[in-house]
Amino acid sequence: MQIYLDCIACFVRQALDAARLVTDDEKIHEQVVREVLSLAADLDMSQSPPVIGQQIHRLIRNLVGQDDPYHKIKRRFNNLALKLYPELRKQILGSDDRLETAIRLAIAGNIIDFGVNASVNESDLNKAISDSLAADFDSRQMQSFQDAIEQAEEILYLADNAGEIVFDRLLIEQLPYEKVTVVVKGMPVINDATMEDAVVAGLPRIIEVIDNGSDGPGTILESCSSAFRSRFSIADLAIAKGQGNYETLSDVNKDIFFVLKAKCPVIARDLGCEVGEMILRKSKSINDIVDLVKEAE
Amino acid sequence: MQIYLDCIACFVRQALDAARLVTDDEKIHEQVVREVLSLAADLDMSQSPPVIGQQIHRLIRNLVGQDDPYHKIKRRFNNLALKLYPELRKQILGSDDRLETAIRLAIAGNIIDFGVNASVNESDLNKAISDSLAADFDSRQMQSFQDAIEQAEEILYLADNAGEIVFDRLLIEQLPYEKVTVVVKGMPVINDATMEDAVVAGLPRIIEVIDNGSDGPGTILESCSSAFRSRFSIADLAIAKGQGNYETLSDVNKDIFFVLKAKCPVIARDLGCEVGEMILRKSKSINDIVDLVKEAE
Repeated sequence: MQIYLDCIACFVRQALDAARLVTDDEKIHEQVVREVLSLAADLDMSQSPPVIGQQIHRLIRNLVGQDDPYHKIKRRFNNLALKLYPELRKQILGSDDRLETAIRLAIAGNIIDFGVNASVNESDLNKAISDSLAADFDSRQMQSFQDAIEQAEEILYLADNAGEIVFDRLLIEQLPYEKVTVVVKGMPVINDATMEDAVVAGLPRIIEVIDNGSDGPGTILESCSSAFRSRFSIADLAIAKGQGNYETLSDVNKDIFFVLKAKCPVIARDLGCEVGEMILRKSKSINDIVDLVKEAE
Repeated sequence: MQIYLDCIACFVRQALDAARLVTDDEKIHEQVVREVLSLAADLDMSQSPPVIGQQIHRLIRNLVGQDDPYHKIKRRFNNLALKLYPELRKQILGSDDRLETAIRLAIAGNIIDFGVNASVNESDLNKAISDSLAADFDSRQMQSFQDAIEQAEEILYLADNAGEIVFDRLLIEQLPYEKVTVVVKGMPVINDATMEDAVVAGLPRIIEVIDNGSDGPGTILESCSSAFRSRFSIADLAIAKGQGNYETLSDVNKDIFFVLKAKCPVIARDLGCEVGEMILRKSKSINDIVDLVKEAE
C-alpha cells in the first residue's frame, strides 16, 4: 500500500507522540517535528508508509541517543499479556471453534501498537479482548485460511508488536506449528517485537524464531537481510500480523493472510472496511490473479 | 495564543481538507500539502496559529486560482441560518434569561467553522443548537459581561464565520446595539464572514458594520487596516467570537469577552476547559492585572 496524502499529517502527529513518549525534552520534540516536516516535504509517495516510519524512528532514536526507547513499554506489555495468557488459553481450549477464537484474540492483541496510538493502556487491552470475542467477524476466509495452512509446507508468521506476540503464541498453538517459523524485527523500532520479546513469550522453546534483519515497522523487503528474504521467497505461505505488515506487503505477489485490526481510516479504506474492524484477509496473490483471469475467460 | 507543536499536524490535515473541499485536482492537493510542509518546517513558533492559517489559505486560493473558494459554502450556511432565525428569535424572546439564551445560540453557531472541520452539515448544526441550549454553561462571567456592556461606550463585535453571523445577530439584538459595531473580515478566507455575509444577515440595516481589512482567519492586528486598528484601540470593549479571534487576541491587553465553542484540544487546554465546552471568558486585560496586583499587595 502506498502513502496516501492523509498519512502525512499522521506522520507528523505520530512523530510528536513518539518523541514525547521517549523524552521530556521539548527542544527534541520540536527538532523531531521540524525534521519530519522536511523529510515529508520531499517524500516519494510511491513508498509504503512504514518506510517513512522507519526513517522517523531512526531520527528519534538518534536525537534522544537511545537504541531502544520503547524498551520499558515493551516489557510492560509482555508482562501484561503473559498474565492474561493462561486464562485466554483456557478460553480457546473451551471454545467451539478454537482456531477462530485464537484468531480473534490475536487480533485483540494488535491493539498494542504504539505507532498508531501512544497512549494504549491495560484497560484498552481488556476492552479489545472482550470486544474481539463478541464482535462480528467476517469469517468467510476462514475455510480458505485453514486449507492454505494444511496445504503449506513452510509457513512464516510475521509478528508485529511486543505484548501482542504473546497473543500470537495463542494463535500459533492452534496451528500445525511444526511447519511455522516466527519472524521478529532485526532491531528495535517503536514497540515492534524483537528476539528478546519472542523469548519472553516462550516461543523459541516450541518453535523456530528468526529475525528479519531490519528496523522497519513492517516488512520492508529491501531493508531486510538476504537470509530473511530467501526464507520469505521459499515459504509457501505467510501470516502477516498488523497494519505495518499489511502496508508493506499488500502489493507483494505471495500467498499471505493478513491478520489485523484496522485502526486507521486510510488502511480501513484501502481494505474496504470500517475502522476498528477485525480482518482476516487473503492477499491478491498470483494464484488469485490466475483464478480471476480464468473466471474472466 | 502561540502555536503549539500539536498544531502542526493539524495545519497539514486542515490544508488537505481545505484543498479537497475547493478542488478535485489531486495534483493540487499534493502541491498544497508539500508547500504547507515546507512552510511549517521553518515556522516561527511564537506566532499565533491563524498567522499560518492565513498563509495556507492564500496558498490554496493561489493554487486553485479562485479568490473565494468557500463562497458557495458560505451562501449555503447563511441560508440555513436565516431559515432558523425566526424560530430561534422566538425562543430567545420566550426564555427566562434572554441574554444567556442568545449567548448559547451564538455559541451553537460557532460550529460552522470550516477551518476546524471541513464536513460540517445541517444535522451538526441542529445538534449544536439543541446541545447548546441544554448543556452546562459556566455563567459565572455572565454578570461581569453584563456590567462591562453597560459601562462600555463603544463595543466592537468581532464576527467569525458566515452562517454563524446570523446567530451573532440574535445575540447582538439582545445587546444595547446602538453602542455596537460589527467587524467582518476584509477579504475572503476559509468561510469567515465578510461584508457580503453581514448584508445577507441583515446587520447593516440595524447597526454599523465595518471590515478589518485583513484576510487572516482571526484578528491578526498587524495584518488589519490602520482604520480598523484605530477603531480597535478606541473601543472600550470587544466581543470576540470563535477560536481564531481567541487565538489571535488572547494575549492582547484589552477588555475582551471571548465567546466560542472550544473545538480543538489545544485551545481547550489553553482555556483550561474540555473539548466541546461553551466559553464566555473575559480576557486577562490590564484592569484585571491591576486588580491582581492589588490583591497580592
